[in-house]
Amino acid sequence: MNLNKDTKILIVGLGVIGGGYAAALTKAGFTVKCITLNQDDIDYALEKKIIAYGTTEASHEIISEADLIICALYPGVFVEWVREHRHSIKPGALLTDVTGVKAAIVNKVQSILGDGVEFIAAHPMAGRERSGVEFSDPSVFCGANYIVTPTEKNTREAIELCCELGNILGFARISIISPEEHDEMIAFLSQLTHVIAVALMNCNSTEGLEKYTGDSFRDLTRIAKINDKMWSELFLLNREALLREMDSFITEMREFRKMLIDGDAEGMREKMRRSTERRSLFDKPAK
Amino acid sequence: MNLNKDTKILIVGLGVIGGGYAAALTKAGFTVKCITLNQDDIDYALEKKIIAYGTTEASHEIISEADLIICALYPGVFVEWVREHRHSIKPGALLTDVTGVKAAIVNKVQSILGDGVEFIAAHPMAGRERSGVEFSDPSVFCGANYIVTPTEKNTREAIELCCELGNILGFARISIISPEEHDEMIAFLSQLTHVIAVALMNCNSTEGLEKYTGDSFRDLTRIAKINDKMWSELFLLNREALLREMDSFITEMREFRKMLIDGDAEGMREKMRRSTERRSLFDKPAK
Repeated sequence: MNLNKDTKILIVGLGVIGGGYAAALTKAGFTVKCITLNQDDIDYALEKKIIAYGTTEASHEIISEADLIICALYPGVFVEWVREHRHSIKPGALLTDVTGVKAAIVNKVQSILGDGVEFIAAHPMAGRERSGVEFSDPSVFCGANYIVTPTEKNTREAIELCCELGNILGFARISIISPEEHDEMIAFLSQLTHVIAVALMNCNSTEGLEKYTGDSFRDLTRIAKINDKMWSELFLLNREALLREMDSFITEMREFRKMLIDGDAEGMREKMRRSTERRSLFDKPAK
Repeated sequence: MNLNKDTKILIVGLGVIGGGYAAALTKAGFTVKCITLNQDDIDYALEKKIIAYGTTEASHEIISEADLIICALYPGVFVEWVREHRHSIKPGALLTDVTGVKAAIVNKVQSILGDGVEFIAAHPMAGRERSGVEFSDPSVFCGANYIVTPTEKNTREAIELCCELGNILGFARISIISPEEHDEMIAFLSQLTHVIAVALMNCNSTEGLEKYTGDSFRDLTRIAKINDKMWSELFLLNREALLREMDSFITEMREFRKMLIDGDAEGMREKMRRSTERRSLFDKPAK
């Protein structure tokens, strides 16, 4: 299978990510259909011309005609959707996803599907602190990272097609790693940062602080506006790795705390020089 | 004293904040002179037309003609500068600053100055993760907060003039609180966030992580590019308050950790709903 203008693409779940994919793919000249829960979201997407067709009914007809199915659902809902509709998916079709954890999902979905339909997992490292198709914006993918996490069951063709999809969506850097490596890194890069933002927002309830804040606090808590259903699910599906990263971080905080108590200016400065140097690696590539 | 186009303004220290003040005040029609360490910074500022005159010599002449002196120096350097040059400051002149801690500085400077010259402390809640006049940009003040921290020694006139200065610089919200209240809040809003960013940047040294990161990690670590000399000094000058905030934050992290271990999804979700609601208070006012 090749991605071309005849490829029938079906997006399942028209939220902030599904909507962004729909917009980017439609703009790239593909015909995108979608299945989603609410008619309002379909109406919005049709009006904005980011889908060609939408339905709230996951019928055999619409699923079975798709060559490429992109599920943009919460992890648990995604697995259930595949279980329920696996017999409708056309043999030879390719299924991919956008789920934020991989090990707990990928093997399960691949074994539900069995042979005939291939599932290749991917994680777009771009989101929004708001949910819903009306906040979707394909420009967030530009300059961002895209991670493909194949297993031994995946074919070279599917991996390549998934990378091509990432390219078409506008991602700047596409990587291929195992689901386990993905989860280990995401526990640090994404899950720990969300826990920190939530904790920071909750640990001081003094009134009126917004009158005195600067951008540093705003930046560190942007993601404290969080989809509680999705993120609690993601955390629990990657619990061990997240706990390890939380423990490393707390240990590092306590080390800094000790230096502060001891008046160890040079120790703190050394940590700051290291963070300054290391942070420069993480600057976003130019769009 | 009133701020008008005849007011002789002297900025001491042409770094990222001093340079931003110079640019904003020059743009507003004031004549701004400056004293700073490096001739290169003066040359840059003259070329960019953000100062009318600059010198590396803190001579009696230039100091004594100023009506308003704005010191944009590191805390310790600031106190020493006042001690060294207090006799050059014209009686009736007003001195203000941009220092990030107040209690440890304000009383000291006021008692060094004695009568005749009034020091009114202020803290612009806007900065950059880079140092130096070439990174200064007065637009960072627009929409930002400005905090004036008078003591009982300050006159109403000086407080008003300092607020007027904040207005001219473009700040959106100007508040007046005591040095002690300031330090308590800044320990949370600014110092704790910098400690977190540094710790997050240092607690995982896996290579190649930048290939997989999303914006959340980038946002939480933007300020991990940090001026180690200045921030270690600020932390030590506000040690007790910062330790209290670090402890509250670590306690909150440990509470979340316990919920994760217990699989308490509802507990985590409640914390996320609270952080989402509370964070909306902190959105930046429109420019």
